[in-house]
Amino acid sequence: MTDFIPVFEPVFTEKEKEYLNDCIETGWIGSNGQYIKKLEKDFSKYCNQQFGSCVSNGSAALDVAIRAMKDLYKWEDFSEIIIPSFNIISAAQSCIYNKLKPVFVDAEPNTWNIDTTKIEEQITPKTKAIVVVHIYGLPSDMEPIVEIAKKHNLKIIEDSAQAHGQSYRGKKCGSFGDVSTFSFFTNKHVTCGEGGIVLTSDKELLDKINYYKNLCFTSNKFVHNDLGWNYRMSNLQAAVACAQLENIDKTIAKKRELGSIYQNMLKDIPAKLSVDKTDYANNHYWIFGIVIDKNVPINAKQAIMKMREENIETRPFFYPMHNQPVFKELGILDNKKREISENIYEKGFYIPMGMNLTLTTLEFISEKIHNLFK
Amino acid sequence: MTDFIPVFEPVFTEKEKEYLNDCIETGWIGSNGQYIKKLEKDFSKYCNQQFGSCVSNGSAALDVAIRAMKDLYKWEDFSEIIIPSFNIISAAQSCIYNKLKPVFVDAEPNTWNIDTTKIEEQITPKTKAIVVVHIYGLPSDMEPIVEIAKKHNLKIIEDSAQAHGQSYRGKKCGSFGDVSTFSFFTNKHVTCGEGGIVLTSDKELLDKINYYKNLCFTSNKFVHNDLGWNYRMSNLQAAVACAQLENIDKTIAKKRELGSIYQNMLKDIPAKLSVDKTDYANNHYWIFGIVIDKNVPINAKQAIMKMREENIETRPFFYPMHNQPVFKELGILDNKKREISENIYEKGFYIPMGMNLTLTTLEFISEKIHNLFK
Repeated sequence: MTDFIPVFEPVFTEKEKEYLNDCIETGWIGSNGQYIKKLEKDFSKYCNQQFGSCVSNGSAALDVAIRAMKDLYKWEDFSEIIIPSFNIISAAQSCIYNKLKPVFVDAEPNTWNIDTTKIEEQITPKTKAIVVVHIYGLPSDMEPIVEIAKKHNLKIIEDSAQAHGQSYRGKKCGSFGDVSTFSFFTNKHVTCGEGGIVLTSDKELLDKINYYKNLCFTSNKFVHNDLGWNYRMSNLQAAVACAQLENIDKTIAKKRELGSIYQNMLKDIPAKLSVDKTDYANNHYWIFGIVIDKNVPINAKQAIMKMREENIETRPFFYPMHNQPVFKELGILDNKKREISENIYEKGFYIPMGMNLTLTTLEFISEKIHNLFK
Repeated sequence: MTDFIPVFEPVFTEKEKEYLNDCIETGWIGSNGQYIKKLEKDFSKYCNQQFGSCVSNGSAALDVAIRAMKDLYKWEDFSEIIIPSFNIISAAQSCIYNKLKPVFVDAEPNTWNIDTTKIEEQITPKTKAIVVVHIYGLPSDMEPIVEIAKKHNLKIIEDSAQAHGQSYRGKKCGSFGDVSTFSFFTNKHVTCGEGGIVLTSDKELLDKINYYKNLCFTSNKFVHNDLGWNYRMSNLQAAVACAQLENIDKTIAKKRELGSIYQNMLKDIPAKLSVDKTDYANNHYWIFGIVIDKNVPINAKQAIMKMREENIETRPFFYPMHNQPVFKELGILDNKKREISENIYEKGFYIPMGMNLTLTTLEFISEKIHNLFK
């Protein structure tokens, strides 16, 4: 039996240790530390936004970003926010917590990103923003989205948690949003275990974000005019994220190499693979996904179990938001199907992309994936 | 001019570095790391509870603890939770976020803890729990509280964020609650910059806490029956907290030494000082507080400003919950005054308790405090 092959494995340099030791030696481990400031400066610059605000994770980033926008732009309760149905729950949950209504748009069948041709049919006079999510490392098609947002006077919330360092037509992901959010979860191209950041070029919005993430403290300490959260990040987390950011080009190069090898090895299986490139971007492979063809009598759950028997970890795709039991119970759903999201959930899973994978291991994984179809 | 004297300064040993380097070398920085498990085990054992669940901070700890209890014990919406009015906003905010009503009890004038003689008058058939907060490091008087809780069938939520390693009649703070919460914020006796933990001896409650802090993920990944939060802690934070916990006896000894020096130096000023001991506990001085006598024509704000001019950082006391603008706006307040809380806010502030304070610096601080009354 081969050793267990995890779906992700981060890589560190000596820099992470150096920065962490510096936190301890200087005594600065809290949210006022210098690595917090450095990360906010370096990461916003890297993404062509003016300001950054470190937070405790990517879900927290969406919570404060949406709360801050609702406050600054005076969105009424139950205003509508457009969100891809094929997505993690965070953005939709943020809407609920902020008394806004999430409205779900189906995925595009090849890229798995939001289907830009289906956005306008969901826009109503109550719509205030579009949450764009660059699914699995391939950017959403931003040009039509920006155009729709302009036409209908909508804000863009760019959830780039899966697209660190990725570009769309040469422009960095994270640079398109009125507000952009990132996660630094363990499996991300830039990680600190748990962490996140919100970027914006609007100083007023930044101030609101910093207010809501810090329990709505003001200079009149302990007197509260609003409710927020403690979503602050520690200097320890920022130290590691700073070191990771310095190494991002190498990380992306390695992920692209792995993606390219998989493309070649798996090109003959009866499945759609993560798209390698479109006319606007090259995939940077946050993950490598496989969606089994409809007519093949095996679904993702079965594939995942079979791979597990071979000691290969794989993961399911997102479960569509428009079918979530919790949203059914809240009564916020229409009865429309979003067939693409449903199909790619049913048939999709992703495979190991650890930074230390060897060619031998990749060949082993490929062999076992081929066996699924025998 | 003397160097700036901060109100807190943490102290680290070589252990923090060692554990952090281990995280990087092993590649385990996320919420599944070994220091998370170690901290949960060591900290719960230290506090005589069976289980621990690491979270991102002390406010997060209260959010998940209260959500988990509401779910497990089937508390109806708008059930009532008793909370000291003299407190940080977190517990009351958690109630609002969990559709529960916070009900505020005034402070006891000497210890600044909840006035146990005023709890029962606030109990109604809707009351479900009492949040006990050990204010500023001196335990609340647990015996009458436990008795009231038993008599009225109420749960105890023991917010021990200010009382790491403290004891009440020889029993550890954190051991009294059906659920107990701690913060590891920068200024705490055990710190990791940002962090927290929830303790309980109820396995079912632990499972709920772990569920709600992890976005309500289940084994059927990405299918959600409830809404939660991402309140996970990183292994980096846990590593530092583990090292800090090993050093807690020394930390407390040093804080008690500082407290005792201040008691002696400041005994003649027209003010109430943090109580050094009661019949049930010795103060362990999370902070050293001063409440200026009513008839002295200077309030806390003025004192803080004057101390700032001397380059000495001090901090205001909590602003009473029953006067918070945000709760007025939410319409959840009665019109009763809680005069003790109001007075200690008006007249109270706390002074430097950094771990590296020298006798010379303490004398300097004492001199400047005496000058306030000249």
